[in-house]
Amino acid sequence: MTFDLILIGFGHVAQRFVTLLEEQRTGVTRELGCLPRVIAVSTHRHGRAFSERGLDAAALVNRHRRGESLGADHGELSTVEFIREAARKSPAAADGRLVVVETTTLDIARGQPAIDHIRTALDSGAHVVTANKGPVAFAYASLAAAAEAAGRRFLFEGAVMDGIPIFNLARENLPTVEITGFRGVLNTTTNYMLTAMEAGQTFERALAEMQAAGIAEADASLDVDGWDAAAKTAALANVLLGARMTPHDVGREGISPAAGARAVSARAAGRRLKLVAAAARDTDGVTARVGLQELGADDLLSGLDRQQNGIIFSTDLLGEFAIVQRGSGLTQTAYALLSDLIAIGRTTAGR
Amino acid sequence: MTFDLILIGFGHVAQRFVTLLEEQRTGVTRELGCLPRVIAVSTHRHGRAFSERGLDAAALVNRHRRGESLGADHGELSTVEFIREAARKSPAAADGRLVVVETTTLDIARGQPAIDHIRTALDSGAHVVTANKGPVAFAYASLAAAAEAAGRRFLFEGAVMDGIPIFNLARENLPTVEITGFRGVLNTTTNYMLTAMEAGQTFERALAEMQAAGIAEADASLDVDGWDAAAKTAALANVLLGARMTPHDVGREGISPAAGARAVSARAAGRRLKLVAAAARDTDGVTARVGLQELGADDLLSGLDRQQNGIIFSTDLLGEFAIVQRGSGLTQTAYALLSDLIAIGRTTAGR
Repeated sequence: MTFDLILIGFGHVAQRFVTLLEEQRTGVTRELGCLPRVIAVSTHRHGRAFSERGLDAAALVNRHRRGESLGADHGELSTVEFIREAARKSPAAADGRLVVVETTTLDIARGQPAIDHIRTALDSGAHVVTANKGPVAFAYASLAAAAEAAGRRFLFEGAVMDGIPIFNLARENLPTVEITGFRGVLNTTTNYMLTAMEAGQTFERALAEMQAAGIAEADASLDVDGWDAAAKTAALANVLLGARMTPHDVGREGISPAAGARAVSARAAGRRLKLVAAAARDTDGVTARVGLQELGADDLLSGLDRQQNGIIFSTDLLGEFAIVQRGSGLTQTAYALLSDLIAIGRTTAGR
Repeated sequence: MTFDLILIGFGHVAQRFVTLLEEQRTGVTRELGCLPRVIAVSTHRHGRAFSERGLDAAALVNRHRRGESLGADHGELSTVEFIREAARKSPAAADGRLVVVETTTLDIARGQPAIDHIRTALDSGAHVVTANKGPVAFAYASLAAAAEAAGRRFLFEGAVMDGIPIFNLARENLPTVEITGFRGVLNTTTNYMLTAMEAGQTFERALAEMQAAGIAEADASLDVDGWDAAAKTAALANVLLGARMTPHDVGREGISPAAGARAVSARAAGRRLKLVAAAARDTDGVTARVGLQELGADDLLSGLDRQQNGIIFSTDLLGEFAIVQRGSGLTQTAYALLSDLIAIGRTTAGR
């Protein structure tokens, strides 16, 4: 008995997930009853690999880092066909022990092709875990329904605040509580930039630092124009508030060099300029917005320095509570995938 | 099929739990498959009630509020014997659908008699949920072992930060993560008093306000001498760090009128005086301490005003993250019991 994994996307996050699985093999084996094996990998530019007996994932990471192709190309298949074929050949699919790990990059126009990947995976008998916020931001309701119909799970803890439990917390630990809204600082790059610009750093230099650290998105517009925050806001609103929105329905403001001067003068007045994401449900439905706000020192969000993220939730029974992420990085994002995988394992074991 | 409840202690928290169950009957019924019924209530000074067909809990709340006895006294039995008898007569005990709800007050000397109540309940086939921090602060390891041996659950979400998920979060949502330490502001009364004294309020008046609001413990020493914070620290250390300590093993400092002057001068210097609880594991085991600290404005704990609580956790895989409670009160504490009850229902349903 094993868990089979199909990795769609093999960038930094997926590679860290593979090495983290190995580092945490004792804990993972305790939780899942076995160490999962990778049976298929599909990359954007480095080909594909498949073996129903399991691949040497660590060797694939090394090959990818050397810029080599992963092996037989399978280039004649589309990614969707590749997922379907790999799932068909996995002996673990039938008893719910096949998981597709989706880590392709965010497409802010439509959330594709990740949504198609996930739909195909669910239709093929696989569970899905993803760190890509696109699918949940653009198509949560329909993907959740597809998972329900297939008797499989669709989990995405890494879509917001990496591996800090947000979605799994709301799903598991707040029964009968109604979340009515939230306010948060959700984008690391812009929060770092605002903190740096307060201290006199230029916009360009602050952005370059985040790009050099591998934290800013390859397409800087996703961060500085507020798209990443808007996608996270839509994801949270869809899942926690029952909205049916996309990132394009979120009121959106980004940061520009001019925000630097505003940040400096706010700071001088004892306030902080923050890119705040907020959503709330009222009788007309859910409204959501990402925008710059000057916050007083007594606002919890104003204390989120540099790369910290945080969300304040409003609820009916518990009043307000907040979750703050103080460390972020590849390991935290990869851990989100691991925690989702273990959540699936626990469900499967419970059957 | 039903869930049977035995309420040991029937003060404000237990009474709010009873009314909350009724208010949330739709959600509770959805989660548990039925609305639980109260079959037994034991009070300190208002007698006891028992009916294996179920009591009218709302009527008991009204009686208790009028200062009337709950009914037949059962005074010939000790509380432990009462629990054993009630459990023996519950048809739900055999299939794991009997829950003892323990809400007696904190005994800081030894955590008794709550520990005996819980041990008896587990031995009698009942699960236990409690908002009393004594048992987990004094006897977590042995009670967890007793629950394991009995095939029952011992849950205590309300022991720290009311119904905000701390223990259930760590248990359910952080698989393979090792928590290595924590720092927090855990006692509401002293945090309110320090905030009020910063603004010129006197110690006595600030304490009186918390007593009038029903937030301070009846025995003021439990709050102002740091005992409540020490008990919470021991509870967290025992559960999250694997310690085997009692509140008496926690280094402890409280607040006094003299702390008011310190709070004022700290504030004038841009700092905040806080009663900080902290514990960490190192090679020699776990050390824990509650004490006054002057915190800089960039410390998340310094921003916790008035009745707010918060904990910063240190972990191996996720770095630091924090959970902040911004609203506290009876409903939040009662909700902790409800969320534990539903957690038990989910386990039972999964069998």
